[in-house]
Amino acid sequence: MMYAAIMGYGTIGSGVAEILENCRERIARSAGQEIVLKYVLDLREFPDSPVADRIVHDFQQIEEDEQVTLVVETMGGLEPAYPFVKACLNAGKHVVTSNKALVAAHGTELLQIARDKKVNFFFEASVGGGIPIIRTLYRCLAGEGIQEITGILNGTTNYILTKMDREGASFEDALKEAQDLGYAERNPEADVEGYDTCRKIAILTAMMTGREVDYEDIYTEGITRITDMDFRYAKKMGMSVKLLGISRIRNGEVYARVAPVMIGKEHPLYAVSGVYNGILVKSDMLGTSMYYGSGAGKLPTASAVVADLIEAAQNAQTNIPLGWGEERQTIAASKSGESCYFIRIAGNTDEKAARIKEAFGEVQIFVLENMDEFAILTKRMNETEFMKQAIALDSEYQKMGEEGLRQVIRAESEG
Amino acid sequence: MMYAAIMGYGTIGSGVAEILENCRERIARSAGQEIVLKYVLDLREFPDSPVADRIVHDFQQIEEDEQVTLVVETMGGLEPAYPFVKACLNAGKHVVTSNKALVAAHGTELLQIARDKKVNFFFEASVGGGIPIIRTLYRCLAGEGIQEITGILNGTTNYILTKMDREGASFEDALKEAQDLGYAERNPEADVEGYDTCRKIAILTAMMTGREVDYEDIYTEGITRITDMDFRYAKKMGMSVKLLGISRIRNGEVYARVAPVMIGKEHPLYAVSGVYNGILVKSDMLGTSMYYGSGAGKLPTASAVVADLIEAAQNAQTNIPLGWGEERQTIAASKSGESCYFIRIAGNTDEKAARIKEAFGEVQIFVLENMDEFAILTKRMNETEFMKQAIALDSEYQKMGEEGLRQVIRAESEG
Repeated sequence: MMYAAIMGYGTIGSGVAEILENCRERIARSAGQEIVLKYVLDLREFPDSPVADRIVHDFQQIEEDEQVTLVVETMGGLEPAYPFVKACLNAGKHVVTSNKALVAAHGTELLQIARDKKVNFFFEASVGGGIPIIRTLYRCLAGEGIQEITGILNGTTNYILTKMDREGASFEDALKEAQDLGYAERNPEADVEGYDTCRKIAILTAMMTGREVDYEDIYTEGITRITDMDFRYAKKMGMSVKLLGISRIRNGEVYARVAPVMIGKEHPLYAVSGVYNGILVKSDMLGTSMYYGSGAGKLPTASAVVADLIEAAQNAQTNIPLGWGEERQTIAASKSGESCYFIRIAGNTDEKAARIKEAFGEVQIFVLENMDEFAILTKRMNETEFMKQAIALDSEYQKMGEEGLRQVIRAESEG
Repeated sequence: MMYAAIMGYGTIGSGVAEILENCRERIARSAGQEIVLKYVLDLREFPDSPVADRIVHDFQQIEEDEQVTLVVETMGGLEPAYPFVKACLNAGKHVVTSNKALVAAHGTELLQIARDKKVNFFFEASVGGGIPIIRTLYRCLAGEGIQEITGILNGTTNYILTKMDREGASFEDALKEAQDLGYAERNPEADVEGYDTCRKIAILTAMMTGREVDYEDIYTEGITRITDMDFRYAKKMGMSVKLLGISRIRNGEVYARVAPVMIGKEHPLYAVSGVYNGILVKSDMLGTSMYYGSGAGKLPTASAVVADLIEAAQNAQTNIPLGWGEERQTIAASKSGESCYFIRIAGNTDEKAARIKEAFGEVQIFVLENMDEFAILTKRMNETEFMKQAIALDSEYQKMGEEGLRQVIRAESEG
């Protein structure tokens, strides 16, 4: 029998308590022993909850109870999650967390303490909700050299973009609906500006390279400037816009970025819609594989936490080698990557086609009826070269007193 | 350091040897120790291969060498794979196999010997090629109650069906091209009749239920009677035909079958095309998740074998609990399931609509231009009830000297 504590009785924490209770036997069978919930740490009381008798308010009670060897952190944020988790690991307890902010900011140190103390620090639920991507990377693709990870990692923005795609909604209306349904927070910045995706792709990049990744090194662009007009062209082009976290190793350099990308129907992530997440992995032997599921939600996320608890219980005496070391991974500048580019330009094609061809080479041109603009899709270009040409074109138009480029979005036709 | 032997130097076996050689350091890092290939068992000599000096022809050399604790079985078939694997496990060696026929026929016994001998019997590569589905079921979804597994599990048939879908090819032409490209064997029966898919869904059903499953209990229908005409209707209906292995738990009963199914664009398996495999899992907490990748091929499959080798090396002294016990799972009769049904009927709708409505209730009707037939799509019906009506209708037509039903295919609009 092993005793567990949950720190933070919010959505996910209460989901974990619920699963531990409802699936007690099945978990005991998998874990090789029963897992008993002894404490739930929260500032609040929950007199009507099934864990009312186990609520504690003092962290030391958990830290100092040697019987408790499994700790779940579902508080979110860094304070006090970070000092609490660190103290638990230092006290020789296994820690399982769903907190991407914690893992992205302090994962390196916490993994090192876990190694030193021969316990485990697991964080499956921090990326992709219930999708078993972290464990897949260290267990299933253990012999693989991973070259690329591309993910739809944020259910809120994917819900908004799916809504814009399918119903022609504006960004503002789609966001409002996501807020009304509880998918987006009142202050949606962390989601719509891409910060959440950034932390997740940082964690995946660290898993891929085995090195520490500072999420602040990753170029991050959100979806706030994506419009219903962009989706009208996308539909015509057989494409859609998705917020992708992308991390690639090319010639020994690591490129990572978060940005909205137009992707075609052949792209394996095209069909990942609504609040679902999808993660595409390219590795040297297996080739392309994809993992898809609920990226958020109480029970899906809690189920990933419970899978981690089971693995910790199975390996109560051993540190499972996973995660990354203290060496820091350099992230190559985003502008050294390459992509196709979708651009919307005011005016009509006849006048502007020749100059555009000069700037970007052969492009595909798309026109919507009765609009004072058109769109182009370039071939694959180096981002520095593209930006140079785009800026030059934009300032030429402006000098002539015209409107500049209305929109630029990266585009990938295939995975 | 651990010593390994490979039995069977065919496509997959040579892939495993190649990966062990080329990724030696990375594997040693993951496994916690070096894995050295000591023997390759094959009837043939391979004088120009990198393993020429390790080829042996006598199984006893492997069985009796106590230094060899890891054995890879990539011979395929049951003889002599079955006695060899059994002897290795009895000799206290870990065995990793890619052989679905072996696992489907003798998995129960081999898993039991592995438990008794405290070694591991792993078979990730036997289902879904390189897709880590077996490990996902026992590692990642360990706390989940799995209710349904639906998979495109055979790359050859999926290639053929994709070709028919995209190019309007006939079954015969698509099969011939698959044979010319080496995707299908000269005798394609095991693939196109669904036998390969049947063994794989039997293994997945045993993983899902924890009980032995006899693949002969699973109703199996192949794709040989699927025609280009069916795909013309499918296109009109926004659907495609896929060969699915399906296993479901409903009210404590397990339903399993292999059959071609029309699925709609919203179905997560719709986009799984060509030689790729995709496996959809529904479980009680996580909900729907999907795993996608190369279902066959030398390196993808070999990479799954190597992941198993690494896990065996990491757990050299422990039997990892996985697989199923000796209790036999009853498979409910296929006809007790339910589905929608696609039917093609000779003649024209005006004359026949009333009688069809009487038989199947409200249906959708589809007509192709200039054809002497039409198609219907029923609502969801119990299979026994559907079959009763379909047989009655068919014999009525025949009594009137008309052609009977031209085609019946199950249909599912969603995953």
